[in-house]
Amino acid sequence: QQASGQSSSKPKKVMVIGGDGYCGWATALHLSNKGYEVAIVDNLVRRLFDHQLGLDSLTPIASIQNRIRRWKSLTGKTIQLFIGDICDFEFLSEAFKSFEPDSAVHFGEQRSAPFSMIDRSRAVYTQNNNVIGTLNVLFAMKEFSEECHLVKLGTMGEYGTPNIDIEEGFLTITHNGRTDTLPYPKQASSFYHLSKVHDSHNIAFTCKAWGIRATDLNQGVVYGIRTDETAMHEELSNRLDYDGIFGTALNRFCVQAAVGHPLTVYGKGGQTRGYLDIRDTVQCVELAIANPAKPGEFRVFNQFTEQFSVNQLAKLVTAAGAKLGLDVQTKSVPNPRVEAEEHYYNAKHSKLSELGLVPHLLSDSLLDSLLNFAVQYKDRVDTAQIMPSVSWKKMGAKPKTVSV
Amino acid sequence: QQASGQSSSKPKKVMVIGGDGYCGWATALHLSNKGYEVAIVDNLVRRLFDHQLGLDSLTPIASIQNRIRRWKSLTGKTIQLFIGDICDFEFLSEAFKSFEPDSAVHFGEQRSAPFSMIDRSRAVYTQNNNVIGTLNVLFAMKEFSEECHLVKLGTMGEYGTPNIDIEEGFLTITHNGRTDTLPYPKQASSFYHLSKVHDSHNIAFTCKAWGIRATDLNQGVVYGIRTDETAMHEELSNRLDYDGIFGTALNRFCVQAAVGHPLTVYGKGGQTRGYLDIRDTVQCVELAIANPAKPGEFRVFNQFTEQFSVNQLAKLVTAAGAKLGLDVQTKSVPNPRVEAEEHYYNAKHSKLSELGLVPHLLSDSLLDSLLNFAVQYKDRVDTAQIMPSVSWKKMGAKPKTVSV
Ligand SMILES: NC(=O)c1ccc[n+]([C@@H]2O[C@H](COP(=O)([O-])OP(=O)(O)OC[C@H]3O[C@@H](n4cnc5c(N)ncnc54)[C@H](O)[C@@H]3O)[C@@H](O)[C@H]2O)c1
Ligand SMILES: NC(=O)c1ccc[n+]([C@@H]2O[C@H](COP(=O)([O-])OP(=O)(O)OC[C@H]3O[C@@H](n4cnc5c(N)ncnc54)[C@H](O)[C@@H]3O)[C@@H](O)[C@H]2O)c1
Repeated sequence: QQASGQSSSKPKKVMVIGGDGYCGWATALHLSNKGYEVAIVDNLVRRLFDHQLGLDSLTPIASIQNRIRRWKSLTGKTIQLFIGDICDFEFLSEAFKSFEPDSAVHFGEQRSAPFSMIDRSRAVYTQNNNVIGTLNVLFAMKEFSEECHLVKLGTMGEYGTPNIDIEEGFLTITHNGRTDTLPYPKQASSFYHLSKVHDSHNIAFTCKAWGIRATDLNQGVVYGIRTDETAMHEELSNRLDYDGIFGTALNRFCVQAAVGHPLTVYGKGGQTRGYLDIRDTVQCVELAIANPAKPGEFRVFNQFTEQFSVNQLAKLVTAAGAKLGLDVQTKSVPNPRVEAEEHYYNAKHSKLSELGLVPHLLSDSLLDSLLNFAVQYKDRVDTAQIMPSVSWKKMGAKPKTVSV
Repeated sequence: QQASGQSSSKPKKVMVIGGDGYCGWATALHLSNKGYEVAIVDNLVRRLFDHQLGLDSLTPIASIQNRIRRWKSLTGKTIQLFIGDICDFEFLSEAFKSFEPDSAVHFGEQRSAPFSMIDRSRAVYTQNNNVIGTLNVLFAMKEFSEECHLVKLGTMGEYGTPNIDIEEGFLTITHNGRTDTLPYPKQASSFYHLSKVHDSHNIAFTCKAWGIRATDLNQGVVYGIRTDETAMHEELSNRLDYDGIFGTALNRFCVQAAVGHPLTVYGKGGQTRGYLDIRDTVQCVELAIANPAKPGEFRVFNQFTEQFSVNQLAKLVTAAGAKLGLDVQTKSVPNPRVEAEEHYYNAKHSKLSELGLVPHLLSDSLLDSLLNFAVQYKDRVDTAQIMPSVSWKKMGAKPKTVSV
């Protein structure tokens, strides 16, 4: 069922929007390696956030220009680069007209929940950037690439934590003796997660009204750093965020363990979510591209491989740390978020497996390698950035300046 | 249960956002008449749309300044006026700080589905204006008016036309042996309707995270023109839109009947929706204000009184026209929208009745008075504006200029 980029006479073209980011960079290289013709579209705003907030990736990352040059010199493969903002439709149109993508993988959003909860202007920025950017992608597809398949990164966080099983995008409901299959109800809990809910609704509508073909990947929390391609050279290295704003659960814990900081469990630690290895992110996206949605189809896949509670993650990291001789402590910190700390969670995720996903599971060895990575770079850690600094309840309308 | 603005020692203050518009103007006068202290917040952009698209209200309408002056001279009651854009947070903050509202009724959005489907820039304008405007209102409430009750105008169109009964905002679902009450699944079918879905999700989140108290009024299609207050003087007259972009179903049919234009039934005409008289809009809003949501509560009322198919409306208008000696024809025109033309529809709407709503039903006499109104002003009708001019499927990315 899986077709590689090379299998047809002409290589398939994939536009990777947000291709300078954590998931996007790994995906762009992976697809290029698999024979797809790849173009990256990115305005590099993620690098600006780091400058503005005084944050940095654990791993040193090269400029996007040097990344792409290094990839070319190592593999002979060209990645096209369009630097610009997808909220600027004139720019996006030129990128679509010049590249003529068969698929557009859209990672290009402000993706941090805490960032969206810093202050009003960041909340507004997040929803505007994500919603309008995605609208522009939809219009560009309608106008310039009718056959193009949109592969859009959503998040498992769109569903919240309902007291019933989470299905993949749709739910068949029987009510007062009648039955219909409807979009799964959404209960997002940050302005960022909400922006993804808005996107999903907008995309579903354009599939129906315009015949757009789209796959919404409701992705779980991504962990890990190495993929086959980024491991080829240090200039290809991916970013790894560990700070309280952009760092995600497991990545943060590994860095905390490496520097001897207690693992920061928010509240009771019963928060359960879906997780996946970044090597599975790139695999899932490839599967979605190789098996496109039909014209007019709005398809939703839950993209994760295993679910864990925060407490389970803390235990796994503690055990893996012990093997490396690290004495890992855990500390409950007041939960900066508004979320259930103990809840039912059972989310389905069979559609990508049916397409052929062979997951990398979170085994000890994997934790070791992520932990080893964190230990290797631990001198780069700014411990002042580890604790959560953004409160859901206390967020205010006034612009929040960053203290140094 | 119903408390008027005067019943407490100090009159309650209501900020009517969008108070120069069709529903907002009628509501502002009604609340002022009932003893509430009223402030109107509006940037008058609705009047600008008319200029830009070459449209006009059937009824001549006075400037907002003259409307308010006339109201004062007739009743002695003052309505405060804040002219500005709620997307401008600096302006909105000043309005909140200076007026200190007990309730904010939010009508201030771009509310035409066809307008949002003209071209990309209007789609983006609609979602940006509505979503960011509402976010700003939420932040202003959090920052300056913690106790303020938000009464937000949503639309019945958020639900789409599911094959099961439509409940008021929430649905209790049993799935795989477990049960939860979740937000009712949304299937909106224009960028305008989608903006309302986005608003609802954003508001629900802030109720949970910040303790905002909010009532989301999922309003049906409003018809009619006279309310007790707007009928007091021609300078208080409300607007009546009949054109293909801002005109809504029943209002349009009455004007079409008055000028001898065949009633424009889109497609098969089986599209069924909830309708209400504008006198009930003002009554519902008053009921919501007088019986506020609790802190942290996100409450949803379906605000309509009767449901009709387009074909049923056409029949009612034809019969009422005959009584006035009008020979009313009906013509099916190709449906410019993407929507089911025959479908199940059964939407609940008991919560406002439980609070005391006494509906004005669509009787012959009512149709007569609306029709009479249309006949009275029929010389003002620009028949070139009657046919639908915006196509859901053909909408493009390019800015659409208006032909004269
Ligand atoms: N990292 C995770 O754990 C995770 C989990 C679930 C879903 N996701 C989703 O996957 C996607 C990628 O996440 P990530 O972790 O790689 O984020 P990231 O911030 O590392 O990458 C996003 C990239 O998009 C770019 N971008 C943002 N706005 C843009 C705009 N308007 N125009 C052009 N480029 C723009 C940024 O510069 C950045 O390079 C996001 O949509 C995110 O919501 C990520
Ligand atoms: N008319 C109906 O049949 C109907 C049906 C269902 C729901 N609604 C909802 O009720 C509300 C009012 O509808 P209406 O028919 O009175 O619309 P309208 O266009 O006549 O009035 C809206 C008013 O809001 C103002 N406005 C828009 N954006 C603004 C901004 N950013 N800042 C300040 N003011 C702004 C406009 O100038 C206008 O005066 C809308 O939210 C609409 O979606 C209306």
